[in-house]
Amino acid sequence: MEEKAIQEMTTGATNGSGQENAGRFRGGRYEQAAASILERINASIGFDHRLAKQDIAGSVAHVTMLGRQGILADADVERIQGGLDQVLDEIISGRTKLLPELEDIHMNVEARLSDLIGPSAGRLHTARSRNDQVATDFKLWTREASETIDVALSELVLALVDKADRHADTLMPGFTHLQCAQPVTFGHHCLAYAEMFMRDRDRYLQGARRLNECPLGAAALAGTSFPIDRDMTARLLGFDRPTANSLDSVSDRDFALDFLATSAIAASHLSRLAEELVIWSSAQFRFVTMPEELTAGSSIMPQKRNPDAAELVRAKSGRIYGNLMTLLTVLKGLPLAYGKDLQEDKEPVFDSFDSLALCIEVMTALVRGLEVNSRVMKQAAGDQHSTATDLADWMVRTLDMPFREAHGIVGQLVRLADQRGCGLADLSLDTLRDFAAGINEEAQAVLTAQYSVESRKSMGGTAPAQVQVAANSARQRNAALDESARARPSNMENR
Amino acid sequence: MEEKAIQEMTTGATNGSGQENAGRFRGGRYEQAAASILERINASIGFDHRLAKQDIAGSVAHVTMLGRQGILADADVERIQGGLDQVLDEIISGRTKLLPELEDIHMNVEARLSDLIGPSAGRLHTARSRNDQVATDFKLWTREASETIDVALSELVLALVDKADRHADTLMPGFTHLQCAQPVTFGHHCLAYAEMFMRDRDRYLQGARRLNECPLGAAALAGTSFPIDRDMTARLLGFDRPTANSLDSVSDRDFALDFLATSAIAASHLSRLAEELVIWSSAQFRFVTMPEELTAGSSIMPQKRNPDAAELVRAKSGRIYGNLMTLLTVLKGLPLAYGKDLQEDKEPVFDSFDSLALCIEVMTALVRGLEVNSRVMKQAAGDQHSTATDLADWMVRTLDMPFREAHGIVGQLVRLADQRGCGLADLSLDTLRDFAAGINEEAQAVLTAQYSVESRKSMGGTAPAQVQVAANSARQRNAALDESARARPSNMENR
Amino acid sequence: MEEKAIQEMTTGATNGSGQENAGRFRGGRYEQAAASILERINASIGFDHRLAKQDIAGSVAHVTMLGRQGILADADVERIQGGLDQVLDEIISGRTKLLPELEDIHMNVEARLSDLIGPSAGRLHTARSRNDQVATDFKLWTREASETIDVALSELVLALVDKADRHADTLMPGFTHLQCAQPVTFGHHCLAYAEMFMRDRDRYLQGARRLNECPLGAAALAGTSFPIDRDMTARLLGFDRPTANSLDSVSDRDFALDFLATSAIAASHLSRLAEELVIWSSAQFRFVTMPEELTAGSSIMPQKRNPDAAELVRAKSGRIYGNLMTLLTVLKGLPLAYGKDLQEDKEPVFDSFDSLALCIEVMTALVRGLEVNSRVMKQAAGDQHSTATDLADWMVRTLDMPFREAHGIVGQLVRLADQRGCGLADLSLDTLRDFAAGINEEAQAVLTAQYSVESRKSMGGTAPAQVQVAANSARQRNAALDESARARPSNMENR
Amino acid sequence: MEEKAIQEMTTGATNGSGQENAGRFRGGRYEQAAASILERINASIGFDHRLAKQDIAGSVAHVTMLGRQGILADADVERIQGGLDQVLDEIISGRTKLLPELEDIHMNVEARLSDLIGPSAGRLHTARSRNDQVATDFKLWTREASETIDVALSELVLALVDKADRHADTLMPGFTHLQCAQPVTFGHHCLAYAEMFMRDRDRYLQGARRLNECPLGAAALAGTSFPIDRDMTARLLGFDRPTANSLDSVSDRDFALDFLATSAIAASHLSRLAEELVIWSSAQFRFVTMPEELTAGSSIMPQKRNPDAAELVRAKSGRIYGNLMTLLTVLKGLPLAYGKDLQEDKEPVFDSFDSLALCIEVMTALVRGLEVNSRVMKQAAGDQHSTATDLADWMVRTLDMPFREAHGIVGQLVRLADQRGCGLADLSLDTLRDFAAGINEEAQAVLTAQYSVESRKSMGGTAPAQVQVAANSARQRNAALDESARARPSNMENR
Repeated sequence: MEEKAIQEMTTGATNGSGQENAGRFRGGRYEQAAASILERINASIGFDHRLAKQDIAGSVAHVTMLGRQGILADADVERIQGGLDQVLDEIISGRTKLLPELEDIHMNVEARLSDLIGPSAGRLHTARSRNDQVATDFKLWTREASETIDVALSELVLALVDKADRHADTLMPGFTHLQCAQPVTFGHHCLAYAEMFMRDRDRYLQGARRLNECPLGAAALAGTSFPIDRDMTARLLGFDRPTANSLDSVSDRDFALDFLATSAIAASHLSRLAEELVIWSSAQFRFVTMPEELTAGSSIMPQKRNPDAAELVRAKSGRIYGNLMTLLTVLKGLPLAYGKDLQEDKEPVFDSFDSLALCIEVMTALVRGLEVNSRVMKQAAGDQHSTATDLADWMVRTLDMPFREAHGIVGQLVRLADQRGCGLADLSLDTLRDFAAGINEEAQAVLTAQYSVESRKSMGGTAPAQVQVAANSARQRNAALDESARARPSNMENR
Repeated sequence: MEEKAIQEMTTGATNGSGQENAGRFRGGRYEQAAASILERINASIGFDHRLAKQDIAGSVAHVTMLGRQGILADADVERIQGGLDQVLDEIISGRTKLLPELEDIHMNVEARLSDLIGPSAGRLHTARSRNDQVATDFKLWTREASETIDVALSELVLALVDKADRHADTLMPGFTHLQCAQPVTFGHHCLAYAEMFMRDRDRYLQGARRLNECPLGAAALAGTSFPIDRDMTARLLGFDRPTANSLDSVSDRDFALDFLATSAIAASHLSRLAEELVIWSSAQFRFVTMPEELTAGSSIMPQKRNPDAAELVRAKSGRIYGNLMTLLTVLKGLPLAYGKDLQEDKEPVFDSFDSLALCIEVMTALVRGLEVNSRVMKQAAGDQHSTATDLADWMVRTLDMPFREAHGIVGQLVRLADQRGCGLADLSLDTLRDFAAGINEEAQAVLTAQYSVESRKSMGGTAPAQVQVAANSARQRNAALDESARARPSNMENR
Repeated sequence: MEEKAIQEMTTGATNGSGQENAGRFRGGRYEQAAASILERINASIGFDHRLAKQDIAGSVAHVTMLGRQGILADADVERIQGGLDQVLDEIISGRTKLLPELEDIHMNVEARLSDLIGPSAGRLHTARSRNDQVATDFKLWTREASETIDVALSELVLALVDKADRHADTLMPGFTHLQCAQPVTFGHHCLAYAEMFMRDRDRYLQGARRLNECPLGAAALAGTSFPIDRDMTARLLGFDRPTANSLDSVSDRDFALDFLATSAIAASHLSRLAEELVIWSSAQFRFVTMPEELTAGSSIMPQKRNPDAAELVRAKSGRIYGNLMTLLTVLKGLPLAYGKDLQEDKEPVFDSFDSLALCIEVMTALVRGLEVNSRVMKQAAGDQHSTATDLADWMVRTLDMPFREAHGIVGQLVRLADQRGCGLADLSLDTLRDFAAGINEEAQAVLTAQYSVESRKSMGGTAPAQVQVAANSARQRNAALDESARARPSNMENR
Repeated sequence: MEEKAIQEMTTGATNGSGQENAGRFRGGRYEQAAASILERINASIGFDHRLAKQDIAGSVAHVTMLGRQGILADADVERIQGGLDQVLDEIISGRTKLLPELEDIHMNVEARLSDLIGPSAGRLHTARSRNDQVATDFKLWTREASETIDVALSELVLALVDKADRHADTLMPGFTHLQCAQPVTFGHHCLAYAEMFMRDRDRYLQGARRLNECPLGAAALAGTSFPIDRDMTARLLGFDRPTANSLDSVSDRDFALDFLATSAIAASHLSRLAEELVIWSSAQFRFVTMPEELTAGSSIMPQKRNPDAAELVRAKSGRIYGNLMTLLTVLKGLPLAYGKDLQEDKEPVFDSFDSLALCIEVMTALVRGLEVNSRVMKQAAGDQHSTATDLADWMVRTLDMPFREAHGIVGQLVRLADQRGCGLADLSLDTLRDFAAGINEEAQAVLTAQYSVESRKSMGGTAPAQVQVAANSARQRNAALDESARARPSNMENR
C-alpha cells in the first residue's frame, strides 16, 4: 500500500471531510446529516426517550384530574387514558419507533396518541405546558433514580458489614500517609466505608424528600386560568405537595443539582475504596486478591491479572464530577423562567446515574468476592514500629508522664531501634530503662500488634469487640435507612 | 526614561528573578523566603488561625472529660483550662502573635499554653491526636458557618417576601427564553427566588444535622486505650453523638463537601438573580434602578452608574463552584485514613463562606433598595402578544375546542397581527371570527395583561391574590426554618 | 384509572425494580443485562467504534513497517493489508456488526480480520500492544478532530468579518457592565469575536503540533526487542516523529487535555456571543432578529419565537467545561504507565468535539443570517450620555485641562442634564460655560454619537475607517492560519 | 468549667454573632466591618497590590509615549515619570501603605502620585482607561509568571534527567495497572516525567507568545481620539504588537485561561509523580526513601516519617483545577465589553501561580534528594512473571509463531508456574517443550529481567543504552526550550 494512501485514509484530508470522518461511526449520523441544523441542536429524543414512562404517568395523572374537575368530559378522559396506556405499552415493547423529527419524547407520545385516538388527543395539553410537563417528568425520573441508587448503596453497606463481621479481628496495618501508623483490624476498615455510604444514603433520601413537590400545573410559567386541582395531581404522582411558585417550578433544577452533587460525593468514596483495592492487590502489598471474574488479562503480557474493574470505578469519579460541573455551569447566570438552556440538564443526570449504579454494583461484587490475605496483613500490622504510641500511652498511664514527654522518649527509642535495624520490641529492658527508669515487662507487652488492637476499646475504636458492636450498629442503622426509604410517599402503596 | 529601563522594570528579566518579582508584594513573602521549603508547603497557620476559637473549645471539652474520667488530675485540668482561656483571650485581643514557624494553630495554642502553665500543658494531648483534633475543630467551624449563612439567607428571603408583598399586583412581562411569554407580577417573580433560597436553607440545615457527630476520641485513627467518654465530649461541644468509626472520623470530609456543594447551588441562585438585575437595569429594559450606593462610577466615563455589586455577586459563583471542584479533586482516590492531602480542605471552605456570606448580604441590600419602575414594567407586560395563550385558553373553555386546535388558530392570528403591525387586541371582532366563528367581545377582554394575570388563580399562579397568599405562606415557612435552626442541638442553651 | 395504579406506574416500587425502570429505555439495555458485570463496566465498543478508521490505518502502517523490516513475510503483510482494507470497508458500509462481547474496536477488527484471513491475522500484533495501539488511534482521531474544528472556526471568523465589513459604520451602543458606555460600530463588535476565534484556532493548531508524535512502537510500556522502525510508522501516519519515551507514550493523555481545554475556552467565547444574541433579540433591545429557521415556537404560547439555537450554544459550554474537569480528575494521581482509568479518556473528547462542532456550525449560521436593526441600534448609541468622555477629552485637548479635572466637570454636567431630564447636547452653551469657561460650539459638536465614533481613530479603535482596515487584516490573518493549517505534516500529500 | 459555657464558646449562639465568630480571625476584618458593603465587595487592593510593579511600568510607558506624541508637555512627562519611580520605590520598600479605601492598586498609585507631584498627576490618565490599564498590568504579570514557572520547570526537568543518567541501568518493575508488567529501568521512568514537563514548558511558552499583544490604548472599549502611538507602548513594554480590537482588548481574559489550563495540566503531572513517590515510599514498596527534610513527624506516633511534601503536591492539583473552573465559570455567558465580573480573574491566577511554583520547587527537591533502593527495585523487577512477554516474543522471532499463538502458550505456562508456586524461569526445559517443541536454552535466557531490559532497544525503549541516549536528547531539548524562552521579546535586552 502506498504511503500516500495510508496517509489519506488516516486524515481524510484530501476532501476536507474531516468532520464527516471524525463522526462517521456515530449512531444516527446519517439521519442527523439530513436534518436541519436547528433540529440537530434542538432534538432531545436521543436521550429524553428515557422519560417515556414518567411522561405518560404524568399525562395520565393530569388527564385524570382534568376529568374530575370537569375540565374534560369523561369520554375524552377515558379515550386519552386508554390511548396513553397503549402508547406506553408500545414503547416498552419496542413496537413504536421514536422519531427524531418529532424532536422529543413528549411530541412522540402526543403524536402517537393522536394517531390512536384522533382529535381528543389535542385536549390532553389543556392547562399545562411543555415547561411544567418536562419538569414533572424529570423529577419523577430523578426520584426513581435516587431510590435505585439508594437500594444499591444499601446492598453495598451490607456487603461491607458482612465482611467486617467476618474480619472483626483480622489484623492489618492502619495507614496514615500510606505509612503504617497503628495496627487496626480489616473489619474496622470495612466499617469506615459503611459509614460513608450510609451518609450517601442520607443525602439521597434528603434529596428525594426535598424534590418531592409537584410542578405540574405551573403551566408555561404563570399558572393557569383553568380550575385545576394541583393537590390531586401531586397526590396521584406520589408527590408530597404541589410546588409553591409557578415561575420557580419551571426554572428550578435544584433537584438535579442535588442528585449530581450527592453522586459526586458518593463517587469520591468509591474512588477511595477502589484506590485502596488497587494498591492492596499490587505484588508489593498482596493484602487482597480480587475475584478473578473482576480482573482482566493483557493483550501482550500473558501473565497479567489487572484490576480493571476497580480502576474503572476509581476513574468514573471523573465523569461524575464533570457532570456536576456541567449543570452548575448551565445554570450560572440564567434568567428566569424557562430557557432552552435547561434542556442540557438531563444527560449529565442520566450519565451520573448509569455510571454510579454500575460502579456501586461492581464495588459490591468486589467487596463480596474479595479474598483477604490475613497472613500478609497481620505480618505487616507490626511494621514500622506501629505500636510506638502504645508504649508512649503506657508511660503516660503508668508513669504519669505528660504525653509530650513520653512521645519524645519513644521517638528516641525508635531512632535507636532503626540504627540497630530491629523493632522496638527487640530492645532489651535495660536499654529501655536507660531512657525511662520505670519501664518494665508490662511495657514490652504493649508492643505487640495484637495487644495494641485489643486495647483500643474506646467507642468507635478498632478493638475486635468494638468492631463487632459497630457492625451490629451499622446493620441496624442501615436497616433503619431502608425503613425510612420505604416510608417515602412515593413508595406508599395505598393512600 | 530609556526603553531598556522600562523593559527591565517590567520583566525583571536581567537577573532572572521573575519569581521574586511576581510574588514580591505578597504579604509575608519575606518570612516565607527564610523558611525551609517543607515549612513553606506544610504550614497552615496562614489560614487555620481561623480555627483558634474552635480549637480551644475542643481542648477545653477534651480536658474536662479527661478530668471527669480520672485520666488527668483535677489540678492539671484546672491549670490547663485556665491557660486555654487565657490563650483564647490573647488571640482574640491580638496580644499573642501566631508564629508561622509553629506551622499551625494547634501548635501555636499548645506552645503558648506551655509558656503559660509549664509541663502540665504536655498532658492535654493525652488520648487524642492531631487527626481527631483538627477534624473536630473544622466540623465546629463548618457548623457555625452553615448557621451563619442560614441566618443570612433567612434575611434575604424576608427581603424578597417583603418586596413581593408590596408588588403583589405590579405587572411585568413573564419571560421565557428572555422573550415576553405571559404577564406576571413582580411580586410573583420575587417569590420564585424566595423558594430557591428556602431550599438552600434546608440544605444547610440538613448538612449541619448530618455533620453533627463528634470525631474527638478517634485519636490518630484507631481509637485509644484510655478510658475516655466520647459521649461527654460530644455533648459538651453540642454534637448529637460521637462518630461511629475512628478511621472514618479522621479521613472524612463529607461535611466540607456538603457545605461546598450547598454553597455552589446557592451561588447559582444568586447568579441568576444578579443576572436579571443587571439586564433589568440596562437602558433598554429600565425595569429597575439599583440603589445608588451599590453602583459604581467609571474612571473614564463620567456618566456611568455601573451595577458592580450585582456583577460581582454573579461572578463569585465562579470561585464558589471552583472551591467545590477543588475539594472533590483532593479527595479523589485518597487512601484512608488521614493523609496530608486533607490539609487542603480548609481554604476552599473558608473562601466559599466568605464569598457567599458577602454575596448574600449584598443581594439582600440590593433587593431591599431596589427601585421598581412599575410603569415601564407594566407597559412591557403586554408586549409580544403575551396574552395569546389566554385567547387560546378561552377558546378551549368556551368553544370546547381541543387545545392544540385553539393553539393553531391563535398562531395564525398572531401572524396576521404581526403583518399588520398591531397587537392581538387591535384585531377587529370580524377578523377574529374569520378564524373561529364563536369568538365574541368576552374573548377580546381576555387579551389585556391585567385580565391575564388576574385569571391565573391556580395554586402557585401569578394572580395577585395568589401572590399575597404565597407571600404569607413563604413568610411562615421561613419562620418555621428559623425555628428548626434554633432547635438544633448546637444552639440549645441548656442540656 | 386508580390512583394506586398511576402511582405504581410512576415509581415501579412494587417490584423493587427501580433500576430496571429508570434505565429501561436505554439502547442496548437488554444485551447489557445479559453480560457479566465486568463486561459491562469494561466494554468500550459503545464509544470506541468511532476509532475504527484510525485503528485500521494504524494497523496498516504497522504491518507495512513490519514487512519492510523483514519482521513479517511479504505474503503475510499483503494478506493482512488486504484483510484490513476489507474490514474497514465492511465497517463503513455497515455490513459488519460490531459485537459488544468483543469489548472494544480493536478486538472487533482483529476478530473480523481473523475470520477473513485466518492465522496470519495473529501476526499483526507482533511488536506492539493494545497500549501503544490505542494511544496512536486516539491521537489520530484527536488530530483530525482538531483540524475539523479549526476549519469550522475559520468559517465562523469569515462570517464575522463579512458582517463587520457590511456594518463597519453601523452605530450601536458600546456596552460595559451592560450599560451604554461609548458609541461603537456593530462591525467593530463583530471583529472582537473574530479575534477570539482566531486565538482559538491558534490553540488548536498548537495542540495538533504538540500532539504530533507517534506512540506506536512503545509496545506495552517498555519498547520492544523486535527491530522495528518507529520513524517509518510515524511518517506513514503523518506524525512529525516518534514519541521519545515508551512509558510516557502509553500513559500520556496531554493531547486530550489540550483538546478539552482549548474547546472549553472556545466554548466560553461562543457562550458570550450567544448571550449577547439572546439579550439583543429581546423585545426590550430589538437590536437583532435571528434567522427564523434558528428560532423555535412554544407548545403553549402561539406567539413565541424563541432563540433556542443561541440558548443551546450558550448552555453547551456546560458540558464542554464538564468534560475537561472529567479528564483532569481521571488523571489526578494516576501512577504510570497504562491504567484502565485511561479508558475514560475518549467519551469526554468525543462529546466536546460533537458539541463544539455543532455549536460552531450553528453560530456561523446565526451570524450569517442575523438581521441587524440598525435604526434601533443607532438610536440607542447616544443613550446614557454615551459621549460624555468625548467632551472630557475635548477639554483636555483644547483647554489643556488635566484629564482628572475634565472628568470631574463633565460628571457635574451629567448630573445637571439628568436633573433636567435631557441629554448633554441639550444643555445650552451658557450653561456649559458656567462649568468651564472655554467651552464653545466645537465642544458641543463632539457630543454626537457619529462624531464620537469617527474620532476613535487609534489603532484597533472603532472609527469606521479603522474597522474597515481591521476587517481586512482579520481576513488576512485568518487566511494565514488556513495556510499554516494546510502546511501541517498530517496534511501533506507527498512526502 | 460549665458545659453551657463551653457550648457558648464554641457556637457563639447566644448572641447570634455566628458570622462575626466564624470570621473573627481573618486579617483585615475590622477595617472591612467599617467599610460600606459596596466597598467590601468591590475592593481589590487585597490582591491586586501584586500588580504594583506592572501598573507603574505600564504608566511609565504610557506617559513616555504621550510625551513623544506631543500629547503631554515634556515637563509633565518628566514630573510624572519621576513621581512614578518614587511611588514604586516606596511600595517596594514598604514605606507607602496601600489603602483599602482607595479600592485598588491603580487608585493607590495615582493618589500617591498626586500627593507627590500635584495636578500634573491628573494628566497621566489621558487617552487611557482603567479597562485597558488593568488588562495591560495583568498581562504583564501573567507573562512574568509564565516565565517564572517555565524556569522552574526547566530545573525540574534537569533534576529528572540527572537522575535518569545515574539510574539508566537500575532495574525496576514497569507497572501497568500497578501490577508488574515488564522490567524497566528507573532512569527510563524518570524520563517519562521529563517528557511531560517539557510539554508543559511548550504550553507556557506558547501561552506567553499568544498573550504578547498590548491592550494599552484600547481605552474604555472604543479606542481614543488622541493621536497615540500604540506600537510605541507595546514595544516599550516588551509586547510583540498592540492588540487588534479595542473591545476584545478590555474583555479578553484568554491569557489567564491559558495560564490556568496549562497549570492544571502541569499539576496533573505533578500529582502523578507525587502519588508514585507516596506509594513507593510505603513499607510495602520501599523503592525509595524521601529526603528526611521533606518528610514530617506525627503529633501522636513518634515513629512516623510522613511524606507530607509529596502528599501536598498531589493535593494541590485540587486547587489548581478549581481555579481553572472558577475563571471558566466567570466568563461563561458574559457580554462584552468590560464587566465587573472580570475582577474575579486575578485571584485564581495568583493562587495557581503560587501553588504551582511551590509544588515544582518541592518536587525538584524531592527528585534531587530521592534515595533509590536499587536492591529492592531490582528484586521486584522480575516479579509476577514480568518477562513472560519476552518468551512469547522469542517464540515469534525464533519459531515463527503468530504472536497470538505464542501469547496463548505462554499464558498456559504462567498458569502452570503459578500452580507450582514458581517462576517461569524455574520450569524445566522438558516442561516448556511440552507446550512448544522448539523451546531451547536460549528461550530460558530471555526470562531474566536484565536480559529483558537490555533487549528493549527500540527507539524510546527501556534498554540502558537507549535510556542514556534519551537522557542526552532530553537535556538538549530542554536547553533548546531555555533558548527559545530567552529569545522571547519580553526578555530581549536591547531593541
